[in-house]
Amino acid sequence: MYKFSKGTIDDMKQRVWVANLRLKKEHLVYLTWGNASEINREAGLIVIKPSGIDYAVMAPEDMVLTDLEGNLLEEDSLLPSSDLATHVKIYQSFPRVGAIVHTHSSYAVMWAQAIRDIPPYGMTQAVAFGGAIPVTQPLSNEQIKKGVEKATGEMIVKTVENREKGYLTVPCCLAAEHGPFIWGTNTTQAIENAILLEEAAKTALFTEMLNPDVDVISDELLEKQYLRKHEKNGFSGLFFRGE
Amino acid sequence: MYKFSKGTIDDMKQRVWVANLRLKKEHLVYLTWGNASEINREAGLIVIKPSGIDYAVMAPEDMVLTDLEGNLLEEDSLLPSSDLATHVKIYQSFPRVGAIVHTHSSYAVMWAQAIRDIPPYGMTQAVAFGGAIPVTQPLSNEQIKKGVEKATGEMIVKTVENREKGYLTVPCCLAAEHGPFIWGTNTTQAIENAILLEEAAKTALFTEMLNPDVDVISDELLEKQYLRKHEKNGFSGLFFRGE
Amino acid sequence: MYKFSKGTIDDMKQRVWVANLRLKKEHLVYLTWGNASEINREAGLIVIKPSGIDYAVMAPEDMVLTDLEGNLLEEDSLLPSSDLATHVKIYQSFPRVGAIVHTHSSYAVMWAQAIRDIPPYGMTQAVAFGGAIPVTQPLSNEQIKKGVEKATGEMIVKTVENREKGYLTVPCCLAAEHGPFIWGTNTTQAIENAILLEEAAKTALFTEMLNPDVDVISDELLEKQYLRKHEKNGFSGLFFRGE
Amino acid sequence: MYKFSKGTIDDMKQRVWVANLRLKKEHLVYLTWGNASEINREAGLIVIKPSGIDYAVMAPEDMVLTDLEGNLLEEDSLLPSSDLATHVKIYQSFPRVGAIVHTHSSYAVMWAQAIRDIPPYGMTQAVAFGGAIPVTQPLSNEQIKKGVEKATGEMIVKTVENREKGYLTVPCCLAAEHGPFIWGTNTTQAIENAILLEEAAKTALFTEMLNPDVDVISDELLEKQYLRKHEKNGFSGLFFRGE
Repeated sequence: MYKFSKGTIDDMKQRVWVANLRLKKEHLVYLTWGNASEINREAGLIVIKPSGIDYAVMAPEDMVLTDLEGNLLEEDSLLPSSDLATHVKIYQSFPRVGAIVHTHSSYAVMWAQAIRDIPPYGMTQAVAFGGAIPVTQPLSNEQIKKGVEKATGEMIVKTVENREKGYLTVPCCLAAEHGPFIWGTNTTQAIENAILLEEAAKTALFTEMLNPDVDVISDELLEKQYLRKHEKNGFSGLFFRGE
Repeated sequence: MYKFSKGTIDDMKQRVWVANLRLKKEHLVYLTWGNASEINREAGLIVIKPSGIDYAVMAPEDMVLTDLEGNLLEEDSLLPSSDLATHVKIYQSFPRVGAIVHTHSSYAVMWAQAIRDIPPYGMTQAVAFGGAIPVTQPLSNEQIKKGVEKATGEMIVKTVENREKGYLTVPCCLAAEHGPFIWGTNTTQAIENAILLEEAAKTALFTEMLNPDVDVISDELLEKQYLRKHEKNGFSGLFFRGE
Repeated sequence: MYKFSKGTIDDMKQRVWVANLRLKKEHLVYLTWGNASEINREAGLIVIKPSGIDYAVMAPEDMVLTDLEGNLLEEDSLLPSSDLATHVKIYQSFPRVGAIVHTHSSYAVMWAQAIRDIPPYGMTQAVAFGGAIPVTQPLSNEQIKKGVEKATGEMIVKTVENREKGYLTVPCCLAAEHGPFIWGTNTTQAIENAILLEEAAKTALFTEMLNPDVDVISDELLEKQYLRKHEKNGFSGLFFRGE
Repeated sequence: MYKFSKGTIDDMKQRVWVANLRLKKEHLVYLTWGNASEINREAGLIVIKPSGIDYAVMAPEDMVLTDLEGNLLEEDSLLPSSDLATHVKIYQSFPRVGAIVHTHSSYAVMWAQAIRDIPPYGMTQAVAFGGAIPVTQPLSNEQIKKGVEKATGEMIVKTVENREKGYLTVPCCLAAEHGPFIWGTNTTQAIENAILLEEAAKTALFTEMLNPDVDVISDELLEKQYLRKHEKNGFSGLFFRGE
């Protein structure tokens, strides 16, 4: 009858709560500026961080439950993260995504603010992202009027779909003038991808300073490293634990 | 009869003490180079950090009590922070400010030393500061002779008042060749604004390195983000807890 | 009869386990992206970190035992680090190396990605590395096809052998577009060299920004500092503890 | 009869031990690359860190006792820090110095390697250092041959003496291609000056990136801030605890 049990929801809330705390612990967010969510497509549920609650007092039961369109499902629900609409759009467009995190990690934000793709200069980016990390175009005034968060989701989806390498290969996108959204099959993968993104963003910035004429790595190396490592796991693009 | 009770003062001292310790914990000050204060306008009281006391031994009762002109009110008072006159001038000119912090956080200091406004390149600055973060002009020799701290307060007030967006929208100002003064309705807000300022200062620096031709974000986005988020709280400009 | 006892192997595994944990503690690796190994040439054994195991759950007995060609020696062995072939090649070519670490420390990676030697601008590099820290050339497409890890080892050996100062003087090499491999007579030395490398990489980057025309230090100073300090220990190039 | 008691020496060793541990805790040294010393001019004693001992096992009694020329005074003494000769030269030339620390803090090292004075761009440097922070010239080949450490001390003394503002005003000097030596009336002051130096070095680097045409602060501000703050303490140049 029911598509889900109370236990399913409690487990999702627990994982999403842990994921949000870990984002803080890994220095990927400051104050409450970041969020993690998880989807259960069979049960038709999304769980996301509430808006503006201090991490020190935030409890698993504070996590916000919505349906697949982002409608609140619980009576005494807290307000969901203001980025909910962006998460919903990504989940709707990328069917194999199981979890999303949004951070304000400093180096990824710099590239988002500079409105530049992060070029693949090394092995970390090759293995984890398979190529350049894309950035969206800035929102138009019309998009801003209609709703920043939903438009941000639409721009991310459009940007990723227009690239040669899709969301399974490159598990993140920089929202121009804002910051990164990162995904995976579960929250652990999404967070690990967020950590790798920040490192790629940091090293690429200074690689260009050391050598303004530096080339991106060859397609051969990109393919070899990316494929070799991901093939093992039988699932292209969303998971690798390495070295 | 009395405008205030002993309990009022003890509570203020406790909050200001905690605020000063948090500035240190958040890596916004080094050694004893920073300070926090709080005002009670009804009671006619300001409480500020004492000068030069190690955080390890500083106790709540060491906080310094003054009237609204900065005159010491307690007999066995420690010396107040050397920046007291700057705090007093800001309190006198900006009637809705309830707390001020002064830090030497590295990235904000860099912009203050470069004597440059921090341009709004992204969402963090849009939401938290509503536009460019202003810097004062350097002090004139005459101002230096008459008193650096008071002149610093005067320059901050003049700088903020001359901008299109007032102190309620942009809750901080960089004192040229010195560092930032940040305010809020209470110490928690002031500190959170100081954290956001440091992040805005850091990301803006490297955004320019990644893209020397980067544009500031559009007025439409600035207004939309700033207003949408602050309207919720019914008080423009001094409070937002987000995402 | 036997060239080694169970105790020998247990001790090697314990040391390699500790070394991998220390790489993490010293912030030289993120996630599981790094590895340490140790060789016992008499016994014909190499011990290296397993691939992709969380540091939080990794135990000494999880370390992987191989022979000097990198063949697994234990039945229920975990998968060895994907960089095993690089370690094996270095051990085979540099007979006095007793331990190797591979990190993704940020600043060393930047120089590796910029495909630039780190010039010797100061005392730290003079004492610890005796000159420029070399970087390999990028792998050719043919090398990529035949196997990235083995080719990386070959490029490191070729690069170091072609320089005036050999592996005993400069105990590390940057793999182009990847990151550093660092060695020593034991894991402690290798890790200390990795720490010094990261500091040399960081300071050299910004030294060039402060003074684009900066010269490397003189050969006289390089020789004097390097020799004076290493002579004391009766072993040129792989060990110094200083100041 | 005796110029000093056992208690005097034990107290010196205790303070120097604590100072060396604090250098590590404040992230001013890595591994064992740094040292602190203290002088008792009446008793004719210097105590300095031993060479190359891990901080984790270093005990107060391991500190090394020398006379004012740096000769070892205890039979079972450990080897003194390799920079002893530099400390001795500074003590001999600057009579009011009571303690010296030498660090390899990253940002100060960058300026030392770039062989550039740190220009005074802001209040921190004005108050703590009263002007530009000087760097020596590189050592000549003849100096290198005769002894790097002693020559380093001589260069520091010569550099400071040739500047308008002497060792009482500017309590540190960068040894070219090496790193900073910092002093004070006691170890606490010397360490606090080392912390302030690192912050001045860091902010000055990026201040220049933000504004390549930035001016140093005015002589009026330098004098006013420096004098106002130091006059209070009745001792020009070596002590201030502020804000």
